Amino acid sequence: MGKLLIVGTLAFDAIESPFGKTDRILGGAATFIGLAAAKFDVKSAIVSVVGDDFPDEYLEVLRKKNIDLSGVEIVKGGKTFFWSGKYKNDLNVRETLVTELNTLADFDPKVPDAFKNADVVMLGNLHPNIQLNVIKQLETRPKLIILDTMNYWMDHTWDELHNVMRHIDVLTLNDEEARQLAKEHSLVKAAEKIQTLGPKYVVIKKGEHGALLFHGDNIFFAPALPLEEVFDPTGAGDTFAGGFSGYLAASRNRTFENLKNAVIHGSNLASFCVEKFGTERMVTLKEEEVAKRLEQFRELTQFNIEIE
Amino acid sequence: MGKLLIVGTLAFDAIESPFGKTDRILGGAATFIGLAAAKFDVKSAIVSVVGDDFPDEYLEVLRKKNIDLSGVEIVKGGKTFFWSGKYKNDLNVRETLVTELNTLADFDPKVPDAFKNADVVMLGNLHPNIQLNVIKQLETRPKLIILDTMNYWMDHTWDELHNVMRHIDVLTLNDEEARQLAKEHSLVKAAEKIQTLGPKYVVIKKGEHGALLFHGDNIFFAPALPLEEVFDPTGAGDTFAGGFSGYLAASRNRTFENLKNAVIHGSNLASFCVEKFGTERMVTLKEEEVAKRLEQFRELTQFNIEIE
Repeated sequence: MGKLLIVGTLAFDAIESPFGKTDRILGGAATFIGLAAAKFDVKSAIVSVVGDDFPDEYLEVLRKKNIDLSGVEIVKGGKTFFWSGKYKNDLNVRETLVTELNTLADFDPKVPDAFKNADVVMLGNLHPNIQLNVIKQLETRPKLIILDTMNYWMDHTWDELHNVMRHIDVLTLNDEEARQLAKEHSLVKAAEKIQTLGPKYVVIKKGEHGALLFHGDNIFFAPALPLEEVFDPTGAGDTFAGGFSGYLAASRNRTFENLKNAVIHGSNLASFCVEKFGTERMVTLKEEEVAKRLEQFRELTQFNIEIE
Repeated sequence: MGKLLIVGTLAFDAIESPFGKTDRILGGAATFIGLAAAKFDVKSAIVSVVGDDFPDEYLEVLRKKNIDLSGVEIVKGGKTFFWSGKYKNDLNVRETLVTELNTLADFDPKVPDAFKNADVVMLGNLHPNIQLNVIKQLETRPKLIILDTMNYWMDHTWDELHNVMRHIDVLTLNDEEARQLAKEHSLVKAAEKIQTLGPKYVVIKKGEHGALLFHGDNIFFAPALPLEEVFDPTGAGDTFAGGFSGYLAASRNRTFENLKNAVIHGSNLASFCVEKFGTERMVTLKEEEVAKRLEQFRELTQFNIEIE
């Protein structure tokens, strides 16, 4: 069974959208990545940090999915990372109301010995030095290191981000971030340039407009599944990353053709995540639902033109 | 050979984009539709109106593609419709600088007798009463009537637009217009509602974010081909419509499966249109280029997941 090492936040989220408002609920990149990756035949571990205010029932949600939590540090007297945000009418615009780093400010990741030879490493959005620190602890070079990042690290830790990028295989980021990182408006040109900075593969996430995978001259595109209602986009990008990395950890095949499939699996799982607030939909999601929606993805995108 | 009747503007366009600026060049919806449809095995005719300031060399561009122009009225002493627009940096925002209707203000379309039994009718964006007038002149019910419209007609001729919609099979419009027409934010819901107003098929054009085809519970999506450079989006929507309607006029098969192919052909041709200013790219476009790019569309979107 493939081993997947997940590094990222476990968090309290408080979310407002036009469809409602939540109290502090379970959130964080590692949470969404872990829940999505659990849909595949993988042995996963999360490396993260929380305060002792983090309820054991939240950890139990992850343990029940057979995720190894021995790399989650619980800081005595510490407070867990808290994020609060508000979505505007079209759900594409997000305003951050509160960010309290708390224990995350001093996060010193410790990779469990049993995962120092992970097949795939999924580095969720964090300070690039923390992401690099994790890579340095590995005993064998993983078959795939995937790194997610965001504009904040481009604004504040440009050099550190470029440094860690030299050690990774796949970079995931959104369209505006790709433009900022590459200083190119065209996403095709941006992805070309990013590939000169380290990652051989670039995944550009466009939210409701789908995701693009670039590798050399190869481009693949997966749409977001058109939905009747989207309640809460929080975690969609991380759920995509979890489906992408989980599928690839479960598979021995890491060709471009199979990375296409990983993009579809990631998009498929993300389409569920947004249907309810927080992790609710992902926790109860059934195999049959996943398979049925994959069929919808096929109908949505597959055609049969004979080219002369 | 299938017969395609095209109704729409022949125009002078003057375009500014971050990549340059044109004088008054050949433009208009019927022009772009006709040039795209000419890539298929169809007998096309354009119904339109121009002034005698419209150079014969522009008409010759269309005649050379074997498009019947007997339905193009040339008004003595009249001036041709003129549009001028400017694109901002990201090319998604377009500002109209000048619209001079000129002879279009009194356009009284006359369908040539030989096209009153057209297989497919493509009604380009015009006043809905002019579109209806054309439908009333037909002697046999076409296999497919496709209508393109825009927000202007929703703002100013809501009832007339709803009236003509009862006579058509396919409506094409952009995402914001679909939301306006259906008063629904979700495109899935908007397309459902529009299908209750007449058209059995709805095509929602999202520009660089692709196009969606809706029919009952069936949804198909085609991305826009990611390009290194986009010079001028003018005419992309009409080129899409020309590829869509031209392919369907050339084909006997009008199932949902084949409408998918029509969406791909439309998207494929539109990807060329934007590479140069105005009609330049479409006039010289070769069969081999079209076939090669269809292959790119296949690689961009096709995957092979085994669903258990």
